[in-house]
Amino acid sequence: MLQIRSMQDDDWPEIWAVLEPTFRRGDTYAFRQDITQNEAHHYWVELPAATYVAQDGGPVLGTYYIKPNQPGAGSHVCNCGYVVAEAARGQGIASAMCQHSQEQARALGFRAMQYNLVVASNTGAVRLWRRHGFEIVGTLPGAFKHPQLGYVDAHVMYKHLIDS
Amino acid sequence: MLQIRSMQDDDWPEIWAVLEPTFRRGDTYAFRQDITQNEAHHYWVELPAATYVAQDGGPVLGTYYIKPNQPGAGSHVCNCGYVVAEAARGQGIASAMCQHSQEQARALGFRAMQYNLVVASNTGAVRLWRRHGFEIVGTLPGAFKHPQLGYVDAHVMYKHLIDS
Repeated sequence: MLQIRSMQDDDWPEIWAVLEPTFRRGDTYAFRQDITQNEAHHYWVELPAATYVAQDGGPVLGTYYIKPNQPGAGSHVCNCGYVVAEAARGQGIASAMCQHSQEQARALGFRAMQYNLVVASNTGAVRLWRRHGFEIVGTLPGAFKHPQLGYVDAHVMYKHLIDS
Repeated sequence: MLQIRSMQDDDWPEIWAVLEPTFRRGDTYAFRQDITQNEAHHYWVELPAATYVAQDGGPVLGTYYIKPNQPGAGSHVCNCGYVVAEAARGQGIASAMCQHSQEQARALGFRAMQYNLVVASNTGAVRLWRRHGFEIVGTLPGAFKHPQLGYVDAHVMYKHLIDS
């Protein structure tokens, strides 16, 4: 059974093993394709408020972070990033992490969640976030340079987590 | 005559004198209202690709920065922030800086400019950016906590800088 829990320091090698192929591919996240492990640790573990891992009795299959999307007057809106191991796609892990992240975000006091740059060609992700109640509130024309497709649009997606 | 130029290290005290009242007021930027001078220097000078000042033969009247809005595959889109000294409002300084920033951004190789969080209650800014060709590509409901108005909407605004 899939379990999602807060990461511990010694999870990092397995987290990096999940992240690295996705970042190297460069078609979903706006990290440099040649990002170093230290830089990735900074973005994924040090900057965020919390980082989680998903496991099913074995190695880490997925990971996500939560952080305030802006400081100060924007800090009640959080941002999350999710990555699933390539060999574990199609098993509902991203969906389970999305659900888990909304619960954790509420527990951390966030009022809304925002994804800043959902690559339009990543149709599976767009569909999944919509199914979880996220709306496309805006589309940034040509804002993402896809390694195969060139400049593609990216969506800003947003969901209220509490009744205002 | 208003001149806009790259900042030099010894401009910082005058830049901070322009920024501080705006950040303390907390109704336009998502910085903590109690941001320290060192933190402001980090955000306004160290993180950006470039920082500029506007003067008219005297002290600094306005300042802005340019930085990539995202790393990697999003780094062809820049973000700018502008602040005008309270005593120098209404003289076209923000407009002149916006125009200047677009030229500088093109010279730095950026293809588009994005404002991530234009507070909807800041109607003067929204009107000004629209006049400069920026479009509201999305509106984030309640994404900004205004010190007097409570949770207000914020716009994502975007402009192509070059013909694609």
